[in-house]
Amino acid sequence: MKASLIIIGNEILSGRTQDKNLSYLATWLNEIGIQLSEVRVIRDEEDEIIDTVNLLRKKYDYVFTTGGIGPTHDDITSESIAKAFNVDLETNPKALAILKEYYKDSELTEARLKMTKIPKGAELVENPVSKAPGFKIENVFVMAGIPKIMQGMLEGAKIHLSGGKPVKSESIDVFMPESFIAEELSNLQDKFKDVEIGSYPFVKDSKYGTSLVMRSSDETKLSDCKAEMELMISKLV
Amino acid sequence: MKASLIIIGNEILSGRTQDKNLSYLATWLNEIGIQLSEVRVIRDEEDEIIDTVNLLRKKYDYVFTTGGIGPTHDDITSESIAKAFNVDLETNPKALAILKEYYKDSELTEARLKMTKIPKGAELVENPVSKAPGFKIENVFVMAGIPKIMQGMLEGAKIHLSGGKPVKSESIDVFMPESFIAEELSNLQDKFKDVEIGSYPFVKDSKYGTSLVMRSSDETKLSDCKAEMELMISKLV
Repeated sequence: MKASLIIIGNEILSGRTQDKNLSYLATWLNEIGIQLSEVRVIRDEEDEIIDTVNLLRKKYDYVFTTGGIGPTHDDITSESIAKAFNVDLETNPKALAILKEYYKDSELTEARLKMTKIPKGAELVENPVSKAPGFKIENVFVMAGIPKIMQGMLEGAKIHLSGGKPVKSESIDVFMPESFIAEELSNLQDKFKDVEIGSYPFVKDSKYGTSLVMRSSDETKLSDCKAEMELMISKLV
Repeated sequence: MKASLIIIGNEILSGRTQDKNLSYLATWLNEIGIQLSEVRVIRDEEDEIIDTVNLLRKKYDYVFTTGGIGPTHDDITSESIAKAFNVDLETNPKALAILKEYYKDSELTEARLKMTKIPKGAELVENPVSKAPGFKIENVFVMAGIPKIMQGMLEGAKIHLSGGKPVKSESIDVFMPESFIAEELSNLQDKFKDVEIGSYPFVKDSKYGTSLVMRSSDETKLSDCKAEMELMISKLV
């Protein structure tokens, strides 16, 4: 099962805010056997959101979006998603009930009521942090951009997701430049086609090293690959 | 002038590595008056790289790529870019000279020589950190994924970039929920069309607050907007 993430927000593209949702979602999806295959970061612009959602929801099993479902003028995600699915954006009675329970009447401003407008036919996704919910429409999950809220919503989205076998990973760090082991690595990759082998250089205490990362949903092949990798390294050191 | 970034790497999509290049590039481009308008994170797969590069290089003035130009089997960016431009990947004499000067003959392994293979017609982009260069082909800048190296390469790429007026920003933090100022903000945005106004909630010392961010390449309008924003806030507090 494959998923994509659409990060919606000018604040990410301006460099003001460092995204933290990508790596969290990727790791979380791995654990339930879903591969994050593509991410797009786009501006808060209606046409961009509509086109991107409509393209990716056909290409992947699941699409997640983050950002733009708050109360202010620059929060246009819900409306854009409704347009993408060609449905009305309307006050959702459950969402209204949730906010009515959370806020006093005087606090339930016009701006907050904006957060109860949900595309017709969508199911709510619970927000345990600040209540205003996300939603799911077909295979698209629309979530907040604030990491804590997004993480809470993911737990609520879980019941709607069916994955495969979780992807496990093994990692070995060696203090040699990756170019010294490139040929052997390539041979190992040819031998273990079901294991994704990555090589990532690092610098630690002024010494060059390489992280060798193996990832697979087949635990036997993963451990076989790791054993051969260790043997290979012991011959090179 | 508008740019896009293609982050190439399974390690980003698996959640293993947190990308740091997006926000650095975005901020760096702002300063020379180029807007980062879209980012895509894709897997180390030839077809994905070719299709994404060919789409975005027509859509934006500049395209930057990070990742996949190292010496190992999973580094397939240079070859894929050559295919995207329908040119040969060949040993670049300047790149070879650079590595020959940097490495002893015995260190210049087959794997390292891979890093001298550059698409025909491309210009090198200097790598002040670890020497193996990036390159520029038409409006596409191909850079390393390691942040320090990428940042060094950007300085080398600068002479090829022409931007507009730098985008300046102003930011005001207020300790009130964004929903309390949503209506006024929306009016302010309507009044200042050349200023991009964003509203970003935060929590600090258990208190809810909102960062109000104004961005514009027109400094007069930016300071006028800030003055009105301050007046607006003083009335609400």
